[in-house]
Amino acid sequence: MNADIKRERENATFDIEKMTHILDGSPEKTKRRREIESLVFNDPDFDEEDPNFLSRSERYDQAVRKSAQMILKMREFGIADPEEIYHYKSMAKGTLQEALGLHFVMFLPTLNSQCDAQQAEKWLPLAESYQAVGTYAQTELGHGTHLRGLETTSTYDPATQEFVLNSPTVSSIKWWPGGLGKSSNHAIVLAQLHTLGRCHGLHAFIVPIRDMETHQPLPGIVVGDIGPKFGFNEVDNGFLKLENVRVPRENMLMKYAKVEPDGVYVKPPSDKLTYGTMVFVRSMIVGESYRALAKACTIAIRYSAVRHQSELRPGEPEPQIMDYQTQQYKLFPLLASAYAFAFVGQYMTQTYHRISGDISQGDFSQLPELHALSAGLKAFTTWEANFGIEVCRMSCGGHGYSRSSALPDIYVEFTPTCTYEGENTVMMLQTARYLVKSFRQARAGQRLSGIVSYLNEPQDRRLQPQAAGARPALVDVNDLSSLVAVYRLRAAALVEMAAKNIQQELQRRASQEEAWNNSAIDLVRASDAHCHYVVVKIFTEKLAEVRDPAVHSVLSTLALLYALNGITRNSGDFLLAGLLSVPQVLQISVRIKELLSQLRLNAVSLVDAFDIHDKKLNSVLGRYDGNVYEHMFQWARRSPLNATEVHDSFHKYLKPLRSKL
Amino acid sequence: MNADIKRERENATFDIEKMTHILDGSPEKTKRRREIESLVFNDPDFDEEDPNFLSRSERYDQAVRKSAQMILKMREFGIADPEEIYHYKSMAKGTLQEALGLHFVMFLPTLNSQCDAQQAEKWLPLAESYQAVGTYAQTELGHGTHLRGLETTSTYDPATQEFVLNSPTVSSIKWWPGGLGKSSNHAIVLAQLHTLGRCHGLHAFIVPIRDMETHQPLPGIVVGDIGPKFGFNEVDNGFLKLENVRVPRENMLMKYAKVEPDGVYVKPPSDKLTYGTMVFVRSMIVGESYRALAKACTIAIRYSAVRHQSELRPGEPEPQIMDYQTQQYKLFPLLASAYAFAFVGQYMTQTYHRISGDISQGDFSQLPELHALSAGLKAFTTWEANFGIEVCRMSCGGHGYSRSSALPDIYVEFTPTCTYEGENTVMMLQTARYLVKSFRQARAGQRLSGIVSYLNEPQDRRLQPQAAGARPALVDVNDLSSLVAVYRLRAAALVEMAAKNIQQELQRRASQEEAWNNSAIDLVRASDAHCHYVVVKIFTEKLAEVRDPAVHSVLSTLALLYALNGITRNSGDFLLAGLLSVPQVLQISVRIKELLSQLRLNAVSLVDAFDIHDKKLNSVLGRYDGNVYEHMFQWARRSPLNATEVHDSFHKYLKPLRSKL
Repeated sequence: MNADIKRERENATFDIEKMTHILDGSPEKTKRRREIESLVFNDPDFDEEDPNFLSRSERYDQAVRKSAQMILKMREFGIADPEEIYHYKSMAKGTLQEALGLHFVMFLPTLNSQCDAQQAEKWLPLAESYQAVGTYAQTELGHGTHLRGLETTSTYDPATQEFVLNSPTVSSIKWWPGGLGKSSNHAIVLAQLHTLGRCHGLHAFIVPIRDMETHQPLPGIVVGDIGPKFGFNEVDNGFLKLENVRVPRENMLMKYAKVEPDGVYVKPPSDKLTYGTMVFVRSMIVGESYRALAKACTIAIRYSAVRHQSELRPGEPEPQIMDYQTQQYKLFPLLASAYAFAFVGQYMTQTYHRISGDISQGDFSQLPELHALSAGLKAFTTWEANFGIEVCRMSCGGHGYSRSSALPDIYVEFTPTCTYEGENTVMMLQTARYLVKSFRQARAGQRLSGIVSYLNEPQDRRLQPQAAGARPALVDVNDLSSLVAVYRLRAAALVEMAAKNIQQELQRRASQEEAWNNSAIDLVRASDAHCHYVVVKIFTEKLAEVRDPAVHSVLSTLALLYALNGITRNSGDFLLAGLLSVPQVLQISVRIKELLSQLRLNAVSLVDAFDIHDKKLNSVLGRYDGNVYEHMFQWARRSPLNATEVHDSFHKYLKPLRSKL
Repeated sequence: MNADIKRERENATFDIEKMTHILDGSPEKTKRRREIESLVFNDPDFDEEDPNFLSRSERYDQAVRKSAQMILKMREFGIADPEEIYHYKSMAKGTLQEALGLHFVMFLPTLNSQCDAQQAEKWLPLAESYQAVGTYAQTELGHGTHLRGLETTSTYDPATQEFVLNSPTVSSIKWWPGGLGKSSNHAIVLAQLHTLGRCHGLHAFIVPIRDMETHQPLPGIVVGDIGPKFGFNEVDNGFLKLENVRVPRENMLMKYAKVEPDGVYVKPPSDKLTYGTMVFVRSMIVGESYRALAKACTIAIRYSAVRHQSELRPGEPEPQIMDYQTQQYKLFPLLASAYAFAFVGQYMTQTYHRISGDISQGDFSQLPELHALSAGLKAFTTWEANFGIEVCRMSCGGHGYSRSSALPDIYVEFTPTCTYEGENTVMMLQTARYLVKSFRQARAGQRLSGIVSYLNEPQDRRLQPQAAGARPALVDVNDLSSLVAVYRLRAAALVEMAAKNIQQELQRRASQEEAWNNSAIDLVRASDAHCHYVVVKIFTEKLAEVRDPAVHSVLSTLALLYALNGITRNSGDFLLAGLLSVPQVLQISVRIKELLSQLRLNAVSLVDAFDIHDKKLNSVLGRYDGNVYEHMFQWARRSPLNATEVHDSFHKYLKPLRSKL
């Protein structure tokens, strides 16, 4: 092991293993996760070429092979619990994606939840035995987040008792679904349902797209891969153009809405039923923000302990780059964010399970809050992690730009989370809608509960801009609960400001919609402040659960850094609302520097606690043993361009060039 | 042409062509640029497959072919002026890189500037006829920006009158030079010169690395490609390990320093001589920040005019996404930055030429200021553009993630500018060093001139934190010269704060170096504020040159948006220093929204004025005609995964899987 990184570990002030248990949830969970992971990293069938050395087609081929392999192995090992499946797969996939991902994440669950009994009997066995490999075709060339705008049509023909599906325009071509291009032989197609001359909006249809034996596209189906992307190149995201494709009436998913044989449409009992999945997926993405940022921090911080550069003190050896204050300032706040998001992810999962318990008993009362929370936190954490991964990459200098660092892969595979499952700005505005609505309810005298209860506070506690005064003195910048309060007041101030802005716009203009759009910048800011408050609050509350004093101490330092750094980055907000005074903001800057040097000692151990196996990380810079340069050299020698000493292009172009001059 | 984008153009309030002339420098320059560009886009030899559909090796092959082709064509057309070469090449390259880039940018210029007469006679004809294809090998696995740390050795052997070059450690392997891996047969190697038992620091040596006929690596040379990267995959960035490689004494570049045949070392007359190139390259990068951001804005803004989504007013057709305030707030400040950086780029080129005139007459007095300015503005503009390109990409939703948008390519090819030619944080600290030094000189009573003269201002005009009061009332947030002043005061305040911080650290601790490092966060902030002030100032001054009232009007709106947006993004600084009051900051937020809706009308025309040819842009989303979806579909069908209807992986893995379950 590299001597520097060894010394870093020896200097840790806390028990790394105990921290890992907290991040996993319990010692048992850590143990079980490692058992599952070891099934992959001890399995020679998962030894494979670095996908960075493969062509697109080889990369896809490797991913399909791995998908098939995972299915067989998990059956062999009896891995069936969703959490265990997650660990097994994420070890096998590393930073990359699964070719058949949508079959598991969308096709099977949709069949499960939206088939009636007869349909379930037919389709589930086909899907579970991979006779039917499926995907979920919703997004079109012209429409993403705005579902009502989707153009694909499914028109019922009572004469034959079939639906006729069509892509009436270029912009209606289905676009993006994972596994649609080459892998799937079925798709659940979302289309506008027309029957007896009326349109009943979006419904789901099972559409066979390829022959189950030959895998050739069926008549009327134009299907293929949408071409290379920033990342996800191991996945065949696809297009699907439907030309008078007929499917039997029974292929409409009919657990809720129905079309009778004669074409009569029967409405679903409630439209809140599909709401739950969306909320669940967004909650999961918060956890992904943690995991992606944790990977990036692991790589950048370990490398910063190994890399020596320049000089701090004349005549002394070159320092580790982690000794530079600017490097600490880039990385340690992100490390704090990774920890924060880990706990927010845990909170979201717990909340989801609690509330879905209520929902299954018919109590939808908490769904709007959960919906607003999951939308906002999905946007907040993915934006922050997205930005942070790139900071980590650039903090590794040139070597971060090499694919061998894994940082480019982590970024390109993570960045779509800002767009999919609800575009982030749209998500922030959805949360804002809930906040403004709650604010108005509170103003109308209604008593709010839950996470927005701070909007209840009497007017004199919600500070007006400029109406500061005595308050700032009350804030203790070293006390987390005091900081939670100040974040809460900032959120309240910004929600109020956005709501007032809408009011002013309404007084000037005609429509609600214009007033909303003309306040959108303020609304996004308000949502952002709300989410920021929630994250600081959850992180602070988590500390109360931690018994071990050494672990508690270092986690408190991280939480304090998270909270104070958020204040300096948004100091204008806190000053504008009169929540902090100028000397307090200056004091916070000083305090942040102290926290950075306190964390310096534990930085490597704090990323070790994420416990990301080298095989999963797949980064020469982030290796546990710190032996960076040797492995970078070994990796490079395997580059396909080095397969021959002299590349053909020399004979084709460079040598002939001389004679032409 | 798409009807929406046509209407946008009809609504323009200014003459696009006149704006293009301003961006190019003059109508003549626009005309000549277009003539040069048309040589490429009318040339069938440059019609080629989208590199996104190629493997790494094919991509490199294509780039070498193009390099050879460009050399021949430019000779044919007599293109020899550096600016014309730039236009020709950048049209041919699009967003990608040149395989032999370093031959032109570093190998030839270094030979030109550092060969003595005899060396020039030998090497220049070889290099100009491409018998010798070369690169510049400086960076090593273990060292980048800190040149003194480089480990490669070149030891003079008087017995044979040769230098013996070695890579003594793994970390000393040369790493990253473009064209080193496969293309070059020579490298200028930077190595620590040892002679007669003493080390004389870094010097440059011409090292043959491949046989000029067979292109096989020479004895003692281990050379190859460093493997795939985030971008630059058409370039063979390489490694070079030297094992007792002997070159004749005459292969040391000896225009300045020399080693006599007996091994006696002769010092160079001045070490400022190599300074100029570095400053020039950094100035050029500022121009690249403009061009990259202009490309990204062109794509995102045109697409935002074509894309319709969701609803603003119930019952009305879906609006163009550019009608959303949040979309305007993402894109228009970046559009303003692109214009700002265009003018900063022009300013840097002019300043460089002015000052290099002085230097050639032996007057080095302005070099430190130029050095500080180019370092800081390189970092400031590349960071901003880097961040901005990704905002543009994500503002295009899912489609921005497709390689067909060109946005991923623009990002990955641009982002290295934050690292190469001086890592950005190091650059900011170099600028800070100059600022602090100037501040101390001013305090010591010296009269500063040039761009830092604001540090001369009497103490009562440099506002202390909290010492606000009457001042804020003096700022007119609608007046650019008033805003320039407020940016200047912010820079002065932050430079002063950083300098004081160093002072306080010195009082507490022993060394200058520690005090510097413990103030590094503040120093970077001070540099950033200084650069921000310079950009606002240059943009404002540019307006004075613009005669056409309509063009002047829209440019003023952009400049005002640039200045005001910078204030809201850093409102804490302005409030802390007492430069603006709370009501002023709130007023600025309102004003920004007004400016956004003013710019809405001209947004497409403002990106049209960048005049980036479709062929250079290579983006289906950014097409001039706005026919996005049709071309996206056509592009996707050419994806290599669509070469066969059924991918082999179906037969290899998916079909067999069924029988195993």
